[in-house]
Amino acid sequence: MKLKHLIESQQLTVDILSELFSVADDMRANPKKYSDSLKGKILAALFYEPSTRTRFSFESAILKLGGQVIGTENAKEFSSAVKGESLEDSIRIISAYADVIAMRHDEEGSAKRASEVSSVPIINAGDGKGQHPTQALLDAYTIKREFNRLNNLKIAMVGDLSSGRTVRSLCYLLAKFKEGIEIIFVSPEHLRMRGDIKEYLQKHDVPFRESSDLNSVLQQADIIYMTRIQKERMSLEDYEKAKGKFIINKENFNLIKPTARILHPLPHVEEIDLPIETEKQDKRVAYFRQAENGLYARMALLLHLLKD
Amino acid sequence: MKLKHLIESQQLTVDILSELFSVADDMRANPKKYSDSLKGKILAALFYEPSTRTRFSFESAILKLGGQVIGTENAKEFSSAVKGESLEDSIRIISAYADVIAMRHDEEGSAKRASEVSSVPIINAGDGKGQHPTQALLDAYTIKREFNRLNNLKIAMVGDLSSGRTVRSLCYLLAKFKEGIEIIFVSPEHLRMRGDIKEYLQKHDVPFRESSDLNSVLQQADIIYMTRIQKERMSLEDYEKAKGKFIINKENFNLIKPTARILHPLPHVEEIDLPIETEKQDKRVAYFRQAENGLYARMALLLHLLKD
Amino acid sequence: MKLKHLIESQQLTVDILSELFSVADDMRANPKKYSDSLKGKILAALFYEPSTRTRFSFESAILKLGGQVIGTENAKEFSSAVKGESLEDSIRIISAYADVIAMRHDEEGSAKRASEVSSVPIINAGDGKGQHPTQALLDAYTIKREFNRLNNLKIAMVGDLSSGRTVRSLCYLLAKFKEGIEIIFVSPEHLRMRGDIKEYLQKHDVPFRESSDLNSVLQQADIIYMTRIQKERMSLEDYEKAKGKFIINKENFNLIKPTARILHPLPHVEEIDLPIETEKQDKRVAYFRQAENGLYARMALLLHLLKD
Repeated sequence: MKLKHLIESQQLTVDILSELFSVADDMRANPKKYSDSLKGKILAALFYEPSTRTRFSFESAILKLGGQVIGTENAKEFSSAVKGESLEDSIRIISAYADVIAMRHDEEGSAKRASEVSSVPIINAGDGKGQHPTQALLDAYTIKREFNRLNNLKIAMVGDLSSGRTVRSLCYLLAKFKEGIEIIFVSPEHLRMRGDIKEYLQKHDVPFRESSDLNSVLQQADIIYMTRIQKERMSLEDYEKAKGKFIINKENFNLIKPTARILHPLPHVEEIDLPIETEKQDKRVAYFRQAENGLYARMALLLHLLKD
Repeated sequence: MKLKHLIESQQLTVDILSELFSVADDMRANPKKYSDSLKGKILAALFYEPSTRTRFSFESAILKLGGQVIGTENAKEFSSAVKGESLEDSIRIISAYADVIAMRHDEEGSAKRASEVSSVPIINAGDGKGQHPTQALLDAYTIKREFNRLNNLKIAMVGDLSSGRTVRSLCYLLAKFKEGIEIIFVSPEHLRMRGDIKEYLQKHDVPFRESSDLNSVLQQADIIYMTRIQKERMSLEDYEKAKGKFIINKENFNLIKPTARILHPLPHVEEIDLPIETEKQDKRVAYFRQAENGLYARMALLLHLLKD
Repeated sequence: MKLKHLIESQQLTVDILSELFSVADDMRANPKKYSDSLKGKILAALFYEPSTRTRFSFESAILKLGGQVIGTENAKEFSSAVKGESLEDSIRIISAYADVIAMRHDEEGSAKRASEVSSVPIINAGDGKGQHPTQALLDAYTIKREFNRLNNLKIAMVGDLSSGRTVRSLCYLLAKFKEGIEIIFVSPEHLRMRGDIKEYLQKHDVPFRESSDLNSVLQQADIIYMTRIQKERMSLEDYEKAKGKFIINKENFNLIKPTARILHPLPHVEEIDLPIETEKQDKRVAYFRQAENGLYARMALLLHLLKD
């Protein structure tokens, strides 16, 4: 099975994930073997919303495979969008100049619309409150590398679960490995996980529950998936209510099991407040390894989409 | 004959065009043959005005020839221009870092000024109300591909003819193939083609006329060259007067001859209002092919300017 | 001796400079020899402050060595910095995607902080009022090329000496070649060279003095190092007091010795007001050659930092 586009994490079947993980591992071990794999291929990094990290990760991925990049970090302000052009027209034209398009946009559903007119693969690099499937991919890849399994895990998701794309995408993915998966949602009252995901988990028999006692959850979870309260996606009042509510710091860090891991899609701000030395040395801090895994996961995906 | 810079479409002689068209066709048919043609060459994409599409097209062109890119999509705000540096100084320095400069600027005549101090070829990628010769080049290349000739054609130019660079540049070019060329200008009263172009056409014996009856023109023309009313280059009052006046939509589309073609430099907004299916399937809609032709036309131009 | 990072010009020992100058000369003479030297290496150009010229220079340098670039020209506004991420976290993550980071930031000391967490070499491309060591490197390289020596020179530094990074970095460097070095500072009263540099020069036995008589200095100096009054780093009142005070123009240009050279880190504005023909033809105008030297100096530095 081969994907044409990657729009939502539901498309990542167990087989595809397994292929991507093993290719990603091989790329890490043997970078030279792949250094010309995508020679002559051009990635368009089309970011209507800023995200330096995600853009860098995609650009580095195609370059390490021998490909090239054209891109904009501010498509919204600079492109013909300001002249009133439809997204569809922009994509039609850019797909004549590039071999694959990684697109970040602020409207939910925009990546799907792009894929309907594009002559080249579209990778959804985040569509508003919608999905961010390559983040889910790298999250799963990180879990695989840290635990050597994707089942029999108790996963706490903490923070802004309502507008957080990453936790939504990850839920879809975890539902595929449901054996022994248990999810605990920890969020401020007004930022709870939305109903569509809960229904999805129910339908796929993935047990989940909600809690507001972070410290008790920290003692039980194998994975603590922290997220940032996204100030830019809510009212100031909602932000003030949520801010500083669920924090991992020196005080509660050692409640976490020695075998557990903290993940975070980054950037993190005050929700994780640990000394630099702890971040550097304690195995439980996995979020910088997670960011690096993003590079290899995206390399594997690009090769999957572009190989003949 | 070899060009040093490309500043205005008048420089594109019949011989040069013929060479560029045939190289462009060959590049499309045999991309691998050219994939290292400009290895080691660097294009500076120096955009003082935003134009994602044109920039992408140039960047993709040099990359597909094995070259590389340095660039800025916002030279006006970010470069040393804000510190008060003259354009001439910027060009002198950038020409030490790059092998060719594609430059978009908001001042008419700026590309010419740049060419006077640059040690490397300058390509005018649009200078305010001045010219945009690579657009004229790709327009002519599109006409050649669609009709297999550049003479004996009745060409309607529709929309903002006063500030539209593309129609101005195209007029200069068509004057070279004057046999059987006839031009019809269709524009709001206050956005009529300027006198300098009319004089040029008269001097070169190219018949032209003005009309305000779009539907009648649609029935006669071989080529309908639509343009956008450029809100950003006029007063709001002028824009309101011009907006929505000359439109191709479902109602009048079928007045167009089956052998005719609609061109548009894109982005298009309301001046073309056709269903997506029509745009995808009807041969008369040529503007997406036109955008793709821009890639090959610019590849051929870059090779022409940079080959030893 | 091999540098891990380049944070301040004090790190550039006489031996390292000598190596870099000779490699830079060889790269200029034999560019093809080096065209694959850094194949597969990625430079992250991380600019929190705009500087098109410096960025282009670094990007062109790595490309000419066969490497690649990821970059942002507006890290401050677009990166996760706006979401509140610490510089340290950004660097940790970017150092997983790139092999070397050239960083421009508005805070003094930021490059040092970056180097403490980065897993790849950091090049300080300017940190606020701090240093700009590659500018000092290219300045020294230019002096070497123009005079074939770095000692026995009388050097005037003119303009904004208080916030000017380049003159500060250059002083540190000149102190290494102290034999016969003499420095004359010429600046408005309120923009005088700061005490730390004066102490450093004193400690290293480099004679210096201050003067406010530019014309007399022009007659004596071997090198006139002009700098721009940096409007963006001072109050409007201070700017008005400093503006137009020390200018080289047609009137005093010929006071300069035939063997002397005018340097300037560029962009220059009114502080140098010479006819284009003079700038093109008179050997004493060295600042465009200086800019070009920056390319080769940075190529040599990149190779030094990245070679195995």
